[in-house]
Amino acid sequence: MSSSANAPIGIFDSGIGGLTVVKAVMEKLPNENIVYYGDTARVPYGIKSITTVREYALQITDFLLSQNVKAVLIACNTVSAAANEEVRARCGDIPVLDVVDAGTQAALEIEAKSSSIGVIGTLATINSQTYERAIHAFDEGKRVFSKACPMLVPLAEEGWISNEISRLTVHEYLQDFRDKDLDALILGCTHYPLFKPEIEDYLKESGTKVIDSALSIATKTEAMLAERGILNPDEQTGSFTCYVSDKPQRFQILAERFLGKKLNRIEISPLL
Amino acid sequence: MSSSANAPIGIFDSGIGGLTVVKAVMEKLPNENIVYYGDTARVPYGIKSITTVREYALQITDFLLSQNVKAVLIACNTVSAAANEEVRARCGDIPVLDVVDAGTQAALEIEAKSSSIGVIGTLATINSQTYERAIHAFDEGKRVFSKACPMLVPLAEEGWISNEISRLTVHEYLQDFRDKDLDALILGCTHYPLFKPEIEDYLKESGTKVIDSALSIATKTEAMLAERGILNPDEQTGSFTCYVSDKPQRFQILAERFLGKKLNRIEISPLL
Repeated sequence: MSSSANAPIGIFDSGIGGLTVVKAVMEKLPNENIVYYGDTARVPYGIKSITTVREYALQITDFLLSQNVKAVLIACNTVSAAANEEVRARCGDIPVLDVVDAGTQAALEIEAKSSSIGVIGTLATINSQTYERAIHAFDEGKRVFSKACPMLVPLAEEGWISNEISRLTVHEYLQDFRDKDLDALILGCTHYPLFKPEIEDYLKESGTKVIDSALSIATKTEAMLAERGILNPDEQTGSFTCYVSDKPQRFQILAERFLGKKLNRIEISPLL
Repeated sequence: MSSSANAPIGIFDSGIGGLTVVKAVMEKLPNENIVYYGDTARVPYGIKSITTVREYALQITDFLLSQNVKAVLIACNTVSAAANEEVRARCGDIPVLDVVDAGTQAALEIEAKSSSIGVIGTLATINSQTYERAIHAFDEGKRVFSKACPMLVPLAEEGWISNEISRLTVHEYLQDFRDKDLDALILGCTHYPLFKPEIEDYLKESGTKVIDSALSIATKTEAMLAERGILNPDEQTGSFTCYVSDKPQRFQILAERFLGKKLNRIEISPLL
């Protein structure tokens, strides 16, 4: 057993969406300690330039390393797309997993019918073509259809998850995917798991499997920690510390919506 | 004539929404020079704490003062709400106008039937109760009904101005205002003028006058410059310089949607 098995897992996102990853990791690995950093003062990253996203991602990485984390999970598709290599270089021997890689691998494990995969995400994630590159690195023959869905993040944050407006918005964005006979559709944004039931319902006749990368990265984290012998051996429930760069209005309500449970303590730690 | 009559008017916003104010000022005062600052690296301000908004507003004010502006227009409801006094103190003898004050005065000029005024805006603007305070400072007898409409900003930025989704969203937010017999409804966010036709249509049977504070502040600016004798005497069309803290994806398309015309040159000048 490594000496760092009791150390926390560091998870970060541009805001609070990454709490869907925290939720999945807590369910899969309940006795792991978790430190989360949400850059709520500077969210959203999706509309910023790549240079700016890289600078912010490395500031957060340094913060997590200062907390002696045993692994870093990039729970932000925009950062995975723009700064994945930079974060890995900064972490050295500390393993780094990211939602793009996890979602891609899960999509590639689906039995192929059409050899087509769909991806939805923020403008930055889609424009960066990261998922196309990640998918083609494993299988050049896959066709990839992608679509930016910028309205889904504010809908999730307004709490309009299953009303007429959210239904019409999901249909507006996904109408082109309905007749494409996709093997899988990757939810390429940490906010999107909240719309998974509506998306699955809309695509149900197409046989498309909807991939929630929060679940995928939690599964990969368990395998990686087991392989390195650094699963936390403690039997009690792990601790959870939630750092944010600003505590915005409605933070508590939103955070608990993504985390799926009560959040008792939040630390404010600006990086500016 | 003051020696500063040829100096530019400084206009700023947390992002690009303030370009609706630039548009209105250009139409009202075509020969004035304008310097705009949009803090696109740190938008949106509406979800940040008041302390953070104040810090950012003063950084931008210092930038505009360094450009030797003859007046400062706060084209951001969030900043008007959170940092109005701080910006005025920093500007000293340079006059400062803001969209909250301009919108409030325009609403109070409407002939009263019910003595009720409605206000819509971001969460930060509405929660700050700035419009209530501004209205009651002039007339304690007015009733004020306010409503946060956080989905309207992303809808405007997606370009969904008059489709079924934007119509349903406007109706969802304004349904409580329909039977309140309001004298006026203040559009308390610089993005909202894009929805003015839909809002006017939805409220048309109520006789409510919809107040676009971009038009209001442009009218006040003309009066203020005339009173101080610093209207620009040049006969040619004024210059326009657009500074942003980051050039986000789709910036050009969005900026031109708000400005209502082509934008040839953008300067990137981060304040971080």
